[in-house]
Amino acid sequence: MTGSESTTTNTAIGNSARVARQYGPYVQADWGFANHWYPACFSDEVEVNGVVGVTIGGHDIAITRDEDGQVHAIADRCLHRGVKLSAKPMCFANKTVTCWYHGYTYNAESGNLDTIVGSPDDKLIGTVGVRTYPSEDLAGLIFVFVGEEDYTPPPLDSDLPMLVTDKKTPHFRNPNIITKGMRRKLYGNWRLAAENGLDPGHLLVHWDNKIVVALDRAMPLGMKALKDDATESIDIEDGPKGVMNRYDLPENYQPVFENPMVDIKARGGTMYEPFRVSCWLPATLMVENWPIPGITQYEFYVPIDDHHHMYFEVIADTATTEAERKEFDFKYENFYKPLGLLDFNNNDVFAREATEEHYQRFDGWNNEVLSDMDYSVVAWRKQAATHGRGFFQSPYLDED
Amino acid sequence: MTGSESTTTNTAIGNSARVARQYGPYVQADWGFANHWYPACFSDEVEVNGVVGVTIGGHDIAITRDEDGQVHAIADRCLHRGVKLSAKPMCFANKTVTCWYHGYTYNAESGNLDTIVGSPDDKLIGTVGVRTYPSEDLAGLIFVFVGEEDYTPPPLDSDLPMLVTDKKTPHFRNPNIITKGMRRKLYGNWRLAAENGLDPGHLLVHWDNKIVVALDRAMPLGMKALKDDATESIDIEDGPKGVMNRYDLPENYQPVFENPMVDIKARGGTMYEPFRVSCWLPATLMVENWPIPGITQYEFYVPIDDHHHMYFEVIADTATTEAERKEFDFKYENFYKPLGLLDFNNNDVFAREATEEHYQRFDGWNNEVLSDMDYSVVAWRKQAATHGRGFFQSPYLDED
Amino acid sequence: MTGSESTTTNTAIGNSARVARQYGPYVQADWGFANHWYPACFSDEVEVNGVVGVTIGGHDIAITRDEDGQVHAIADRCLHRGVKLSAKPMCFANKTVTCWYHGYTYNAESGNLDTIVGSPDDKLIGTVGVRTYPSEDLAGLIFVFVGEEDYTPPPLDSDLPMLVTDKKTPHFRNPNIITKGMRRKLYGNWRLAAENGLDPGHLLVHWDNKIVVALDRAMPLGMKALKDDATESIDIEDGPKGVMNRYDLPENYQPVFENPMVDIKARGGTMYEPFRVSCWLPATLMVENWPIPGITQYEFYVPIDDHHHMYFEVIADTATTEAERKEFDFKYENFYKPLGLLDFNNNDVFAREATEEHYQRFDGWNNEVLSDMDYSVVAWRKQAATHGRGFFQSPYLDED
Repeated sequence: MTGSESTTTNTAIGNSARVARQYGPYVQADWGFANHWYPACFSDEVEVNGVVGVTIGGHDIAITRDEDGQVHAIADRCLHRGVKLSAKPMCFANKTVTCWYHGYTYNAESGNLDTIVGSPDDKLIGTVGVRTYPSEDLAGLIFVFVGEEDYTPPPLDSDLPMLVTDKKTPHFRNPNIITKGMRRKLYGNWRLAAENGLDPGHLLVHWDNKIVVALDRAMPLGMKALKDDATESIDIEDGPKGVMNRYDLPENYQPVFENPMVDIKARGGTMYEPFRVSCWLPATLMVENWPIPGITQYEFYVPIDDHHHMYFEVIADTATTEAERKEFDFKYENFYKPLGLLDFNNNDVFAREATEEHYQRFDGWNNEVLSDMDYSVVAWRKQAATHGRGFFQSPYLDED
Repeated sequence: MTGSESTTTNTAIGNSARVARQYGPYVQADWGFANHWYPACFSDEVEVNGVVGVTIGGHDIAITRDEDGQVHAIADRCLHRGVKLSAKPMCFANKTVTCWYHGYTYNAESGNLDTIVGSPDDKLIGTVGVRTYPSEDLAGLIFVFVGEEDYTPPPLDSDLPMLVTDKKTPHFRNPNIITKGMRRKLYGNWRLAAENGLDPGHLLVHWDNKIVVALDRAMPLGMKALKDDATESIDIEDGPKGVMNRYDLPENYQPVFENPMVDIKARGGTMYEPFRVSCWLPATLMVENWPIPGITQYEFYVPIDDHHHMYFEVIADTATTEAERKEFDFKYENFYKPLGLLDFNNNDVFAREATEEHYQRFDGWNNEVLSDMDYSVVAWRKQAATHGRGFFQSPYLDED
Repeated sequence: MTGSESTTTNTAIGNSARVARQYGPYVQADWGFANHWYPACFSDEVEVNGVVGVTIGGHDIAITRDEDGQVHAIADRCLHRGVKLSAKPMCFANKTVTCWYHGYTYNAESGNLDTIVGSPDDKLIGTVGVRTYPSEDLAGLIFVFVGEEDYTPPPLDSDLPMLVTDKKTPHFRNPNIITKGMRRKLYGNWRLAAENGLDPGHLLVHWDNKIVVALDRAMPLGMKALKDDATESIDIEDGPKGVMNRYDLPENYQPVFENPMVDIKARGGTMYEPFRVSCWLPATLMVENWPIPGITQYEFYVPIDDHHHMYFEVIADTATTEAERKEFDFKYENFYKPLGLLDFNNNDVFAREATEEHYQRFDGWNNEVLSDMDYSVVAWRKQAATHGRGFFQSPYLDED
């Protein structure tokens, strides 16, 4: 009797083992890149004296809002016995978070232990504290800087998508931006989500989606790169780092509308304005002119642990009047969300969850067979490998 | 790029690493203390020729009752191919338990293989057997001595709470004791359950509970110890070992009713009779005068494995007439159980389940920050470390 | 304090450690025997241009049917990023399977990458491919040869049960055979399932089953072997290998109808035709004259991984007219399936799932206590150890 075998024949040509050397640190970023700004939740999730718990790259973080409306972020583990403060929110005094179990009460700004409810004279008071995280409440999202405690945070803008000047793309720093969105915890590594979003090769999963058919929007089967550097690498000093597929430049890309070998043709054509897709450090997608011209869809793939991420789906527009804001809300509830964030994006969710097993169980990062279409994904991997500021690591001490 | 970091700032003052040396064996008792008596189930769960399976400290045990009403405990794994006898109870002859799969039939007293149903002449018969466990059916509970097979069991009374003589506290050996209760399998290490029960610092989780508000019972925010040895260590020769919070002694404790730093005050005050809490080896809580004066609530936190325990909640009173017993049953069903064992205790269940993650994943036993309020928990840990008779260990041979 | 202990007293007499040396390779076959033919699914599950995914011994396999009705089997993992082709079947052209994610399109016969939907000029096309598996569509089942890629497959007949000549037993090569059946994924190692099926000692789990009571069929408590070689080992050159319990030979077996030690007697007796049970490499049971004389029940215990198997339950008869086929279908739906495959066999399912824990967590293969009744199981183990052609191994590279 002899042992058994592999289930696939891998000729080397497209195997990523050869190219993987070009973006080594990316392959190591199972838990995500540390020392970056990530969205933690939506602004309207955190009420005054509310506490919302999130996990980013293994960091349990409690977000609270004080009576002045200011947002604070502290470690979401009571020093005492490690329960999550957010499990049962208790803010008895302004700018404090009290642990619901034994009453350890932390200052929301400093993290210091200010009192213990049932032991006001305790010798521990004033001597210890939980760590705090820099936070910023911007355009409907609460961003938190997560990483090493002594790392000096660069400005939030260095981790936002770039400000586009050739289009009317709504940017988070635009005072007239309006956003609405949703977030959900998903199975699958954050990188598989980011790559799926950027990837011009995955359009087959969308070719029959309701929104595409209803709008009669041209959705090619693929986008063929006409140059080696068709995907533009963007590196702004002290600013955003990312890659952009300039589908608006016909000298860079040729859309593929049919394949003679198989009986399938791209549909649609009424809507001609091309969308444009870019991906930004640490894990943000910007899709301009999507779902319709003038609208931008942002997506954030926030690592929770090595096998789960929080998926933020955000629709952005600009508005200067109350009527414009109401119109946006109406369209969000009755069009952008049901047909875009749910029906359309659910196909992406299905795809990335289906991919996770291979990367987890079969070491997919070293067992891929990439094709010409993957120019875009490879460009992103190199950019991320170059500009990631550190690695999150598993915080767990157990052996399970 | 550099690695990342811890999420909390632990100044050393209250960290248990310093005190943990005082109760080292306690920290090792993940699976519970071996060579002790534990309740296995309630008496009325085991009918004549019935078989009930339980797991205590990794030991799978089958409890059966013979036609004389006598209770027996044997290993709940058939020797043949390891299935649980209790999975499908079969007692074809008095004082035997037959395995439902291949008919291996064990003597309930000796554990010996008496016959095999479909192979009455089998050479194996009479040559092998399963181990037996000492058992005792007392006051509505079936107790089993679990540990090393050659360990001579001390009397059950050494593992019951002490007989209190200064109060009318119902004791298990009191012939007039009446008990009713429930048991449930919970997530969480048994020690976190025991400590939560004893802990004077956890009262915040109960301050708004229905039973406290309805009775207008004084429930302080905490109990401040006025002496280093406020928690009394009790060590009766050949008898119970445990610790008792003598809340009835004003020279030992000062209840805390308010905290000026946070806007919270203790409620109630109509009911003045103080309850008194004690914890006993191996894992038993006694709460005297609870839920109301004259009643005692016993709790047992029986280890199943390192991350689960069986939670026994028992209400005890004494009765000498049928009318008194009926009154007790009525109050149990309509007051003690719904408001006490369920509504009130569910807050404790929530707390200990919330604590488990930190102790399991972040090695909580060496990553706590204890406060003055933890005098009681530390006293219990020392007492348990001193008097535990051995350790249960994982019986699993697999590597998963 | 000292450590603790085992929960059973194992006198050595029946312990398999002694006999296990006789069938060592069998104990190692956690994932099943490689280089054998296994049923993958039923023929009517795979439509033209349909794709059905199965896992056999860790091999993910996609079964498809081309427009000529021919069945093909290829690896069910896209080379590109490892998703399962079967997760969302797409066959755009005859004899191809397209991956639903990025459009990699494989030839169903050769496994070669014929095109990529959105990248028709891709340099990868024609240079790589997935492996293929020999397959055969026979008598309502699709069989696949699974193992090392360079292993020359012997004829399917070497892995079918033998052609019985002394009875009118329907064989898969009989042109008049008709079959109907079902398959379900079950928890439990495949060997525990195979042994349960063959085992004359497990009849206790069936003694009160509806079908036995309704038919008043004699179901002994056990079958006593009258010779050491009561279980016949069958080894046909270039043909089936297996073991057969010749219950039809009274000089080999004595049925046990009662046991004086326990108050239980076998029931029934109206139906006198004995059934006959045999077990065949790689993992097939044949029960002749079951559920009623003239009918044969085949069962296949196809390993999925080390703790799960696919359980095929197949009823076989012969028919030459449409009326006979209709009568068979009617009896299948209203008798064989509800009373046999479901009600009766569910007791076997319960038993093998109950056994799995011991073999998995307590290394059951080295911690059994076998009895005289196990002659049949031991004979099967030896035969399987001798004729298994290789081992499946875990394909997973992760450490979880």
